[in-house]
Amino acid sequence: MEIIENELGKKLEERIEALIDRKVEEALRKKFQDRKGAVPRLAIVVSKGTLEAAYPPLILATTAIALGMEAALFFTFFGLHILKKGAAESLRFVPLGNPATPMPMPNILSVLPGMTALATFMMKKTIQEKQIASIPELFTIAKESGVKLWPCQMTMDMMGIERSELIDGLDEPVGAATFLSYAADASISLFV
Amino acid sequence: MEIIENELGKKLEERIEALIDRKVEEALRKKFQDRKGAVPRLAIVVSKGTLEAAYPPLILATTAIALGMEAALFFTFFGLHILKKGAAESLRFVPLGNPATPMPMPNILSVLPGMTALATFMMKKTIQEKQIASIPELFTIAKESGVKLWPCQMTMDMMGIERSELIDGLDEPVGAATFLSYAADASISLFV
Amino acid sequence: MEIIENELGKKLEERIEALIDRKVEEALRKKFQDRKGAVPRLAIVVSKGTLEAAYPPLILATTAIALGMEAALFFTFFGLHILKKGAAESLRFVPLGNPATPMPMPNILSVLPGMTALATFMMKKTIQEKQIASIPELFTIAKESGVKLWPCQMTMDMMGIERSELIDGLDEPVGAATFLSYAADASISLFV
Repeated sequence: MEIIENELGKKLEERIEALIDRKVEEALRKKFQDRKGAVPRLAIVVSKGTLEAAYPPLILATTAIALGMEAALFFTFFGLHILKKGAAESLRFVPLGNPATPMPMPNILSVLPGMTALATFMMKKTIQEKQIASIPELFTIAKESGVKLWPCQMTMDMMGIERSELIDGLDEPVGAATFLSYAADASISLFV
Repeated sequence: MEIIENELGKKLEERIEALIDRKVEEALRKKFQDRKGAVPRLAIVVSKGTLEAAYPPLILATTAIALGMEAALFFTFFGLHILKKGAAESLRFVPLGNPATPMPMPNILSVLPGMTALATFMMKKTIQEKQIASIPELFTIAKESGVKLWPCQMTMDMMGIERSELIDGLDEPVGAATFLSYAADASISLFV
Repeated sequence: MEIIENELGKKLEERIEALIDRKVEEALRKKFQDRKGAVPRLAIVVSKGTLEAAYPPLILATTAIALGMEAALFFTFFGLHILKKGAAESLRFVPLGNPATPMPMPNILSVLPGMTALATFMMKKTIQEKQIASIPELFTIAKESGVKLWPCQMTMDMMGIERSELIDGLDEPVGAATFLSYAADASISLFV
């Protein structure tokens, strides 16, 4: 009896160990596919409509895709402005109230007509010289690489903006609920 | 011996498989209750005190609750202003430095006395016409639905604000440590 | 045969249960070390260069460390300004467009020369009176406690800033990819 138990026990234990390893591995894989998606996910709320606010979400999202992650941008409130036809080309950099610009100027100058345009021109010149992608270029990369680009339905209703006023190649407009459900399974969620 | 092993092995294996399935399920449930809470959680730092900065946190938090999630808002720095008695009714929309407003105006006009008031009036009119909830209405929904509303204790000390100056129905003031401990188990954390 | 099975079964079952418990515990520990790090992690993008934008990331990161968490700050766009030699001592508080300051003033006054300096002086005076740590003091605490301080390489290239222009004690400059990989395993990610 002792002999049977020991011998059976040893053989069975090995098989049981292998079985447990496999089961645990499967259960964890299933759990994380359910909860987290197969790959890490980046979810960003884009709530502002300036040149300097458009860059970080587009750079982070396209970089995330390059790293094998999923990424979605939810354009809401003033962020929706970025999606309007022609807006990506004409976003403005606002030096006002930003003492950390490369060329800081007193606010009394920043408010003068033309100063935002001048600062935008100089910022864009720097971007071009440094061969950094422009916002329209980043949008092209984002669309081609599969970044989800979600206009906020509530903002469209609030501001009276039609789907036809927005650029092509976007995903269907969604609400905060859809974004939150997506973000709940994201590894990284940001509000810009 | 061979026969005993096979027959025993088969029966045992089935029982063992069932046992493993149950054990793994239990362990994972315990792990995620410990780490993540029973439901997904949204944690937002509210750091600004304008009308346009008050909307996203309140809309996201009340939407999260409607989706069956937990939600907490931590009002810190200028965000604490929103919690002052009478503030929710009189938050101002600041067009200055925001070229993405529905009615953009040059900064040289935006700084003129009355322009913030005018922009706020027009923004609020739009909100009302579109039947979007006002900030006081969103606070009522937030309180009734169980959104945690945390004033930041350090900001109160710094700005010399007493508990009695804040609106009723808030949770007890907390510090950054309490917020971080809560957010560490959140599915979504945002800084607005 | 029945007897053998029952008795063997009972003994084996106990050993198998113990084995499963241990295996599941190990697998979960390994899984979370792989995915989440041994301790909760806080990852913050610092994108703005004002006094009021520098405080929250430094307070949250040093508080996180005090709670036994890991923390990293990624200084990008105007946030990189904070890392320049002498900048931490001279960050400015911008009252313009911020109606929620303790001492709100009309924008027409806020743009006047000296108003940002005056507001900064008054803000710093309050901070000192309330014995709140200054930005340079928070940097010292952050460095000593092991907060990762990452300058953004792309911003340095874009703005033509050399490593030697930044304060000592920083980590090596990194790109968005490094930050995202770090943040993907963080419990809390924020964009300030």
